[in-house]
Amino acid sequence: MKLTDLYASLENDLNVIEQELESSVTSDHALLSEAAVHLLKAGGKRIRPAIVLLAGKFGDYRLDVLKKVAVPLELIHMASLVHDDVIDDADTRRGQLTVKSKWDNRIAMYTGDYIYAKALTIIAELNDPVLHQALSRAIVQMCIGEMEQIRDFFNTRQTVRQYLLRIRRKTALLIAISCQLGAAAAGTPPAVYNRLYRYGYNVGMAFQIRDDLLDLLGTERQLGKPPGSDIRQGNMTLPVLLALRDTAVKDELLREIERIRDSDGQADCTRAIELIRASRGIEEADRLAARYIDKAVGLLEGLPDIPARSTLNDIARFVGKRNY
Amino acid sequence: MKLTDLYASLENDLNVIEQELESSVTSDHALLSEAAVHLLKAGGKRIRPAIVLLAGKFGDYRLDVLKKVAVPLELIHMASLVHDDVIDDADTRRGQLTVKSKWDNRIAMYTGDYIYAKALTIIAELNDPVLHQALSRAIVQMCIGEMEQIRDFFNTRQTVRQYLLRIRRKTALLIAISCQLGAAAAGTPPAVYNRLYRYGYNVGMAFQIRDDLLDLLGTERQLGKPPGSDIRQGNMTLPVLLALRDTAVKDELLREIERIRDSDGQADCTRAIELIRASRGIEEADRLAARYIDKAVGLLEGLPDIPARSTLNDIARFVGKRNY
Repeated sequence: MKLTDLYASLENDLNVIEQELESSVTSDHALLSEAAVHLLKAGGKRIRPAIVLLAGKFGDYRLDVLKKVAVPLELIHMASLVHDDVIDDADTRRGQLTVKSKWDNRIAMYTGDYIYAKALTIIAELNDPVLHQALSRAIVQMCIGEMEQIRDFFNTRQTVRQYLLRIRRKTALLIAISCQLGAAAAGTPPAVYNRLYRYGYNVGMAFQIRDDLLDLLGTERQLGKPPGSDIRQGNMTLPVLLALRDTAVKDELLREIERIRDSDGQADCTRAIELIRASRGIEEADRLAARYIDKAVGLLEGLPDIPARSTLNDIARFVGKRNY
Repeated sequence: MKLTDLYASLENDLNVIEQELESSVTSDHALLSEAAVHLLKAGGKRIRPAIVLLAGKFGDYRLDVLKKVAVPLELIHMASLVHDDVIDDADTRRGQLTVKSKWDNRIAMYTGDYIYAKALTIIAELNDPVLHQALSRAIVQMCIGEMEQIRDFFNTRQTVRQYLLRIRRKTALLIAISCQLGAAAAGTPPAVYNRLYRYGYNVGMAFQIRDDLLDLLGTERQLGKPPGSDIRQGNMTLPVLLALRDTAVKDELLREIERIRDSDGQADCTRAIELIRASRGIEEADRLAARYIDKAVGLLEGLPDIPARSTLNDIARFVGKRNY
């Protein structure tokens, strides 16, 4: 069972979105198109477009309107990935060469800028300033999240609250907005789209915590890269922060993190990962993710009982059960 | 006489814009604010806000509306500068440390992303999707222009037409849109704002040609950097392309450019500059800039004879006479 199987019923409409995604970035300039299409073809779960469509089912479902919400949201996600790859100096993503590696950093930066701007031109075709503003505000928050992450690299004294605020901006907000704008563009009342927003926020938080856990617990084969890439980079994720509260590992883990920092991320992080895995951090992070999932599922109960609601429920449960 | 003296009559309103610029980027995050404010304080001629205000004088001049056009346009210009500095690996701009040099490339990239997104949230406060779309489309075109510049680095076979298309996207379009959106936000009829758009386009083209000439003709003291930075970077500007048509210098200039390319821009470009200065390229580029200025001035004649028109006329003449 894969996440994408859960929204197989949307296949036809998601194919339309896929074509729109491609045509949205292939008209203007050969090299930009090539770089953007390369990125598209590298795949992705298209969770944001799927969520837009599912949220749209709670109102007047019109694909020609919803696609102008779904496409920009996926484009924004893609643009953020291109810029992340420049920053992280990543050579591959999902097993494919990154834009910065296939071309160079300059191309990657302008490809990202271009995709962001394209996203905003598409949403602006819908005659609703509220949608435009929600989208550009989401980008503002994502940038702040990225800056916070950079500021807090190797900061072992940051609080869990700082981590949660950061992943809210980096990840959860865009998923929340996918729900909200899909429903709002379908003309649902605020009570519905606000509830969907909160559903998306909670799923997004759980999704990022699971992703951060996976980077510590997955095998190289599962991850497509060696585990521990976050810690090598200095990104102190929830399981690490919680492990640092566990007196059984705290002192040695602090020394390990310091060693990794001093080596510019070149040091072996096997021992650090062992310590985190042996700590209470894993279970506690897991529990927090489960709490977010329960919250998301509970929010769905207040919505009309349509098939889309049950699919959203399945998605939440799947994110909650993502196993290692 | 400085360019900014020409719009001294707008001083009070430009001070309001200046405060708005600062407050627009100082609320969210300490490091982002610091980087963005550093950029603001480094100055700039604020030609785009001045043009927005002047264009607004042709309609219902309301500063509270016009500032929501002027601020985003200046922010977009600033964001493009931050990203250019990452690409160009520039350590100083206008005598100040660049964001990438004072902090690093990561900070500079996200600062640029953040400022772009902020610009779009501000324009979206105006309830007019046409304005939102014009702005995001301008960013799309600017990115394409930057990509074209990268693609054409050291391409000595590119045509003058390619150069003109590129500076249209890179520079002229944003100045044209400043005129157009200022007038449109003040409720002028399309005949007025379209004419102002064309005025801005022609001034913008002349402005960039003059800037490219200055990089070849200015002294290190005037420029704040050694002349020839374009040619070292591989940016084949109009005077270079025209010099390459002059048989008196063509062959030697081609060899010099090849040598600079092969040295990754490290080679001395004194001889290349001498050759260009001695060629017909300078005079021909100068003449083309003058043609754009005449066009701009001619377009103003079809507009109501208000003081702002005479200021726009002075600005065009100033750009035309910018001396070396």
